[in-house]
Amino acid sequence: MIETGERLLLVGEDREYFVTAEEGQFSTDRGTIDLSALPGMNPGDEVRTHLGVPFIVLRPRPTDFFVHAKRSGVPMLPKDIGLVIAYTGMNRDDTVLDAGTGSGVAAIYFGNIARHVKTCEVRPEFAALAEKNIRNARLDNVEVMAGDMLQATGEFDVVHLDMTITPAHVEHAFSLLRPGGYLACYTPFLEHTFTALDAAAPIFREVHCYECIERELTRSARGTRPSTRVAHSGYITIARR
Amino acid sequence: MIETGERLLLVGEDREYFVTAEEGQFSTDRGTIDLSALPGMNPGDEVRTHLGVPFIVLRPRPTDFFVHAKRSGVPMLPKDIGLVIAYTGMNRDDTVLDAGTGSGVAAIYFGNIARHVKTCEVRPEFAALAEKNIRNARLDNVEVMAGDMLQATGEFDVVHLDMTITPAHVEHAFSLLRPGGYLACYTPFLEHTFTALDAAAPIFREVHCYECIERELTRSARGTRPSTRVAHSGYITIARR
Amino acid sequence: MIETGERLLLVGEDREYFVTAEEGQFSTDRGTIDLSALPGMNPGDEVRTHLGVPFIVLRPRPTDFFVHAKRSGVPMLPKDIGLVIAYTGMNRDDTVLDAGTGSGVAAIYFGNIARHVKTCEVRPEFAALAEKNIRNARLDNVEVMAGDMLQATGEFDVVHLDMTITPAHVEHAFSLLRPGGYLACYTPFLEHTFTALDAAAPIFREVHCYECIERELTRSARGTRPSTRVAHSGYITIARR
Amino acid sequence: MIETGERLLLVGEDREYFVTAEEGQFSTDRGTIDLSALPGMNPGDEVRTHLGVPFIVLRPRPTDFFVHAKRSGVPMLPKDIGLVIAYTGMNRDDTVLDAGTGSGVAAIYFGNIARHVKTCEVRPEFAALAEKNIRNARLDNVEVMAGDMLQATGEFDVVHLDMTITPAHVEHAFSLLRPGGYLACYTPFLEHTFTALDAAAPIFREVHCYECIERELTRSARGTRPSTRVAHSGYITIARR
Repeated sequence: MIETGERLLLVGEDREYFVTAEEGQFSTDRGTIDLSALPGMNPGDEVRTHLGVPFIVLRPRPTDFFVHAKRSGVPMLPKDIGLVIAYTGMNRDDTVLDAGTGSGVAAIYFGNIARHVKTCEVRPEFAALAEKNIRNARLDNVEVMAGDMLQATGEFDVVHLDMTITPAHVEHAFSLLRPGGYLACYTPFLEHTFTALDAAAPIFREVHCYECIERELTRSARGTRPSTRVAHSGYITIARR
Repeated sequence: MIETGERLLLVGEDREYFVTAEEGQFSTDRGTIDLSALPGMNPGDEVRTHLGVPFIVLRPRPTDFFVHAKRSGVPMLPKDIGLVIAYTGMNRDDTVLDAGTGSGVAAIYFGNIARHVKTCEVRPEFAALAEKNIRNARLDNVEVMAGDMLQATGEFDVVHLDMTITPAHVEHAFSLLRPGGYLACYTPFLEHTFTALDAAAPIFREVHCYECIERELTRSARGTRPSTRVAHSGYITIARR
Repeated sequence: MIETGERLLLVGEDREYFVTAEEGQFSTDRGTIDLSALPGMNPGDEVRTHLGVPFIVLRPRPTDFFVHAKRSGVPMLPKDIGLVIAYTGMNRDDTVLDAGTGSGVAAIYFGNIARHVKTCEVRPEFAALAEKNIRNARLDNVEVMAGDMLQATGEFDVVHLDMTITPAHVEHAFSLLRPGGYLACYTPFLEHTFTALDAAAPIFREVHCYECIERELTRSARGTRPSTRVAHSGYITIARR
Repeated sequence: MIETGERLLLVGEDREYFVTAEEGQFSTDRGTIDLSALPGMNPGDEVRTHLGVPFIVLRPRPTDFFVHAKRSGVPMLPKDIGLVIAYTGMNRDDTVLDAGTGSGVAAIYFGNIARHVKTCEVRPEFAALAEKNIRNARLDNVEVMAGDMLQATGEFDVVHLDMTITPAHVEHAFSLLRPGGYLACYTPFLEHTFTALDAAAPIFREVHCYECIERELTRSARGTRPSTRVAHSGYITIARR
């Protein structure tokens, strides 16, 4: 049952809204929706505007936070988050350290999978924004720390760095990992990728670096072809302790 | 604490073994390991061969099952499993239907994340092999069904198809999905990709198809360059109800 | 020595103009250039605006026509033209049939290499534009034919099709090729690629199809990374008689 | 008419041979071919083995030298040679300096297009092999120089470097180029690519670097899919004076 304060998706024909279940009215070009009617409903139920236009009420999935979360910069793309999850084998028993929180999209993905996530962000205003996005995602196992991951302590199964990486960060990550645990570094530029690889190679047991060029395949009456969009996001260095 | 019957990784210098914690001896070129000593130890502990060579005892992660599980064909690559997880936003509250189990590698990944996974495999000998691999992964939330997913019933958040896809499979997947849930189809060939896209387009709310070309970046004394290995695995069609 | 009527590049600091050596004045934000001074000069000579700002006078290369020729649609990219040249081994002894002239960019490239080029364009207004671009490139070995290549006769070493391809076009291409000669089909969509492949496979000696994903590598003070631009242009089917 | 000493392709059903038109017998599994019958024939004519099996006699094209020339290492791929031709706009009026001849495949391609090609190779045994391959290609406009391109003099429209590049090579290339001419550097490793880019950026008017990921599209009864072969060859830096 939906509770007061939950973030919800309202899905109608060709339109989709991200709202909060609370007192208030939400205006659309199909009429006004009474948000105070949402608490107590169930996901999949229908709500109607004052003009009678129906919308389905849905609990958001991690994919929706990538689209709707307030942003503090260019977030990591889902495909790269997926590579980190797959190459580290992230799972429900894991304790994860995430650094370079940004708007918190990766932390929200990880928090939906792992037992506990600590996410570090050096810029206080980004940490505050991420905190808000994470609360909207109703994740109580994700802890935002405003500060550098060099200050982080504890034992982790996965450390994920999406920030300007120095050898010290790679070495500290090593010291925080359990045996068999994984470091994943996301770096858009080759120079930072080289830093990550060169710092990891002498201390980690296995080190690999991947790039994933994703293309959408578009299909229409004109024909089928790969789209011409985004050809590069970043490199992912995976190091196992 | 490690229990009798658990599958474990033994990690030594430049070598790695996948063993079972049970009565018996395991021979390596560095000496023999007494497996009956493993139950009762903790992950991270050290075991020694009769020659005194140390190995660290680790619980396997999903990544290890990709490498060590008995195979019944070419399994889906981790990068493609990662894309499915990311594009469906798979999470700990999810009920997942997986079809085309093969050796069970994708089901093991999903079972480490989702609340419950049902996986369907039409070839009984593959279903039996997958069952064994899944038991080795100690996942009691993954249920193997020997049969076609067209017989599957229930309500799911994610349906994943890695098999020869017909329009009937796509339509049945739609009927099994909760509102907001995702279908993900993995298809190595363009013709099957077109089948998935064409069957999904008229009934699902959002349909996209991605290809992910992964390249390893190799770095050595000679220099840094993308590797010349695997350039194509398959297409991933993502359809949201 | 530059002749009256030649198209020329004027290259100054951070600016570049494409002009004709003829009576007239050419205005730039660095002053006016007297075009009638150009005939009689030599490539590499300097011309100055009335404000004394220098420009170097250059004969255009095929690459310049890609940038400066009047366009009738999206022209084939140089990288794809280069693949056609390389995979057909186009050379100075060749007679080339080009169809789907468009603005004539590929014909200009081919005309700069081959002995003779016949280029067919079914839309008369495109044929007229191409004729003008080709005259500007001072190529008297390139003949524009307003019509379908199915009407073309003769013997060719290379046939290049950048148009909507039917099996009849592929079969006619075969009949026009000398033994050992090559057909190259450029097709942006998979469906047309399949048509070309399926029509060529039973009659040509060797048939291959390539896609070339080109990315620019960008390097700046921020770092080095592949650009995120154009990831797909088209497929190139190469069939040898 | 075919002359004595010419290299020729003999093309039969499912087999292809590279022979010389001279005294002698050539044995195949379809019978023996009398090579002394070849001089005086015309390309496209048929020759028969002593068992009556027919072969068509063809003059080789540049593509054939890529396949049949004696190799001294891994030659540049045709697709990369094609990119160099397209991005430099190489044409029949050009004088080309090529360095890092290797077995001479790129020089043979360039010699089939440009007016004159000088190609430099520091390893004398490679220079000798290239000389032989180039003579086989009957190109009298290609001159092999055993030595470093730093010793080369003259004026060129295109300089192509496929060798370990130093800033001195890039600077010398600049000094040899006509205004508007192009330098093209082929470098498999990122480090050498950076050297080329960093040396070219301050002195050349325009500098770009491209990578071209080529994939073959394979089509069979099983279906159509990109092949999983070669995903990386090298980077191409293009600098215009």
